[in-house]
Amino acid sequence: MPRYRLDIEYDGGPYAGWQRQAAGQHTVQAAIEQAIALFCGDAISLRGAGRTDAGVHATAQVAHADLSKAWPDDTVRDAVNAYLQRAGERVTILKAAVVADDFDARFSATGRHYLYRIANRRAPPALDKGKVWWVPKRLDAEAMHEAAKVLIGRHDFTTFRSTQCQANSPLRTLARLDVSRDDETIEIRASAQSFLHNQVRSMVGSLKRVGEGGWSATDLKAALEARDRAACGQVAPPDGLFLTGVDYPNS
Amino acid sequence: MPRYRLDIEYDGGPYAGWQRQAAGQHTVQAAIEQAIALFCGDAISLRGAGRTDAGVHATAQVAHADLSKAWPDDTVRDAVNAYLQRAGERVTILKAAVVADDFDARFSATGRHYLYRIANRRAPPALDKGKVWWVPKRLDAEAMHEAAKVLIGRHDFTTFRSTQCQANSPLRTLARLDVSRDDETIEIRASAQSFLHNQVRSMVGSLKRVGEGGWSATDLKAALEARDRAACGQVAPPDGLFLTGVDYPNS
Repeated sequence: MPRYRLDIEYDGGPYAGWQRQAAGQHTVQAAIEQAIALFCGDAISLRGAGRTDAGVHATAQVAHADLSKAWPDDTVRDAVNAYLQRAGERVTILKAAVVADDFDARFSATGRHYLYRIANRRAPPALDKGKVWWVPKRLDAEAMHEAAKVLIGRHDFTTFRSTQCQANSPLRTLARLDVSRDDETIEIRASAQSFLHNQVRSMVGSLKRVGEGGWSATDLKAALEARDRAACGQVAPPDGLFLTGVDYPNS
Repeated sequence: MPRYRLDIEYDGGPYAGWQRQAAGQHTVQAAIEQAIALFCGDAISLRGAGRTDAGVHATAQVAHADLSKAWPDDTVRDAVNAYLQRAGERVTILKAAVVADDFDARFSATGRHYLYRIANRRAPPALDKGKVWWVPKRLDAEAMHEAAKVLIGRHDFTTFRSTQCQANSPLRTLARLDVSRDDETIEIRASAQSFLHNQVRSMVGSLKRVGEGGWSATDLKAALEARDRAACGQVAPPDGLFLTGVDYPNS
């Protein structure tokens, strides 16, 4: 059974997240599994690198699937896309490629990259509605960038972890957390080998509090060190979050 | 009666264009007029710089309206936006400002700028659906850029004008028509004092034919010189078109 790596883009708005759920909840994973079933009849179980939440987007999610038969890579991409389009899904396969049998989209990943976008202006977003967090009050992006440094490195991120998080350990190593402003858009880029559930959105919500002047970098550090979910600021909405890349060895 | 200039952003997808229509057709102009009526009770008639077609977007449309009473600029912007949001409109007022009584958003305009975006890749757009023209076949953007030069300057643009166009003259002076590629996105930027109805989309459709190799620059020139609507290539869909700016004297 050949294993395929799929690189996937989606608008998370209409979906109850990446992961297949009980009946009645439409998810990105289920949409792709259904398209694959229609293409080749295989009832596969897709494994994704990042289990994005409801409303979270991806420009470059990665997943793998074992098909019962070998098809040319481009045939898999184009055929699955045709069925996704026919079903009106907001999901597209950017690339399909046969990979080694031991490639695992989730467990082989050595890095995950997220982008969070804030529309920092008085006017609500019209064109980017659902793709940004609208924060009308001016934020100090430089202060946010400076404060973000206290979160970089290996820490117990209990404060920035959903109470629903199923990870065994709250320890994670945050490799990057950069905040920059481009006119009225604030971009926050976060990278780590892996993240806890809601970690990026929890960190962004607390950074927003820094940007408003409500918290200093010292307050952010104290929140981290509290190792207490109650010490976290607001959890940022899913709209502004994009999974933008996954790293693998030798790729 | 103070005159206000409104700078407006909208997602054209849900609208039957800018201009108010007969009942049953929801337009951007009508959405804003209704929000203004709810804000201050004035039944105004808004005049826009560009009468964009159904499905065409704007990052910076300009319009003017005379209100019966003077309000602070920011109050107008925020209050109209609040009513637009409440109505679920995909329209937002970026800026409101009192201007001179002789300012006319349409007739004072000295330049109009449009951007047309093509997603030039095999995979259909998921995140940008409705905001780009999807062209899966590889286009030669450099050939398109070179050919576009034959359209620049003052010409009879009958070939690139909708048969519905109400302008008295088919003569227009095209100041800019640039084509560039950024990875899988092709951007076409067009500027002129004014455009004919469907002119940008007609030019883009013909440039796409050049990009596919179906037409040379000489063919494009012949189409222009034919002054015949039948000589035009495909009219590009509205999805990829954005009104990105309007120029006025001393602004």
